[in-house]
Amino acid sequence: METSVLLFDDVNALDVVGPCEVLSKIPNMSIKYVAKQIGAKKTNIQAKLTADYTFSEISNPDILLIPGGQGIKSIVNDEIITKWIRQTHEDTIWTASVCSGALVLAIAGVLRGLKATTHWVKLPCLEDFGAKPQKQRVVIDGKVITCAGVSAGIDMALTLTSLIAGETAAQAIQLAIEYDPAPPFDCGSPDKAPRNIFELVIQKVENQKNN
Amino acid sequence: METSVLLFDDVNALDVVGPCEVLSKIPNMSIKYVAKQIGAKKTNIQAKLTADYTFSEISNPDILLIPGGQGIKSIVNDEIITKWIRQTHEDTIWTASVCSGALVLAIAGVLRGLKATTHWVKLPCLEDFGAKPQKQRVVIDGKVITCAGVSAGIDMALTLTSLIAGETAAQAIQLAIEYDPAPPFDCGSPDKAPRNIFELVIQKVENQKNN
Repeated sequence: METSVLLFDDVNALDVVGPCEVLSKIPNMSIKYVAKQIGAKKTNIQAKLTADYTFSEISNPDILLIPGGQGIKSIVNDEIITKWIRQTHEDTIWTASVCSGALVLAIAGVLRGLKATTHWVKLPCLEDFGAKPQKQRVVIDGKVITCAGVSAGIDMALTLTSLIAGETAAQAIQLAIEYDPAPPFDCGSPDKAPRNIFELVIQKVENQKNN
Repeated sequence: METSVLLFDDVNALDVVGPCEVLSKIPNMSIKYVAKQIGAKKTNIQAKLTADYTFSEISNPDILLIPGGQGIKSIVNDEIITKWIRQTHEDTIWTASVCSGALVLAIAGVLRGLKATTHWVKLPCLEDFGAKPQKQRVVIDGKVITCAGVSAGIDMALTLTSLIAGETAAQAIQLAIEYDPAPPFDCGSPDKAPRNIFELVIQKVENQKNN
């Protein structure tokens, strides 16, 4: 099987690496990192991730994975990229997104009429592009699987793995990456976070918009 | 503040990106990816991460982060690398590892007499280098913070963030990356996994050793 992961400048690194850590362990899974132009792409963590393939070198991946990040601002306005996503999606077995990658799918027209989710900050925006926003960690509608913000890509990929390769394979991968999460706080969703923490994050998002 | 992250070929990508997703959000935190030689390093997920700095370009980072991965086999035998780790550790505020990165610290002599943890498969090995293995997700002893396998780096980094920048900052980062984990199975540690899953992972580890 083959997974194609879209890379672009200012992609969110964990959106890419979280799910790929899981998917890459599926037997006979090949992962290709693809971009409009090959080369090292800047990420939000000051690390660079390398795209080794351009669109023309990729044909009919089984899984198309679209991560999110600040960089989606420029790629959603790029007709070559959105057209590639739309066309590639037609023949996938699964089309997946992490975090604001769902907005890229939505703007490309892939989520019209579908239940989907994204980072909690962006969730209402999905409706603007004809999707049905769901307040869930992982949402499956037909062959499209979307998930909540950043770290949710790990949960999404384990779910996807169980659908592709079976529960035993998914469980073995979960144990191999010792994914027995124990966050020091219980504030990872807006419903659980104290009000002051919620407002702090909203404020940071507003500041980013203005920069 | 500055964090230096050691990169090398066949580093585990999530060991790097999980904690850096968290640490990079600490206000005024700069993260530098350092290697014996600069350039793109292969990872376990067929993606490449770029090291922009060599050892001579890094001086006195506040945090030293050592990830794990298959590639540690070659770096633990490299006296230039282990010497750099030992010397850099002397002046850090925190020295951290993820997964088998703890073995690198141990072999460099950093963990002698200290409580520490690593991936469950490797945990007994820590004793061979004078460390005191702990079956915990995150272990702090003095200024050294180690954690369990792969995905545990996120929990480690949130803990470290709360110590460096306070609980409010750590909680805001947890909410920003929507770290409200919901794995589809409860088998992320050897104590929780069914016996057949445990044996499957042990078998895969043995196969890797023989390759």
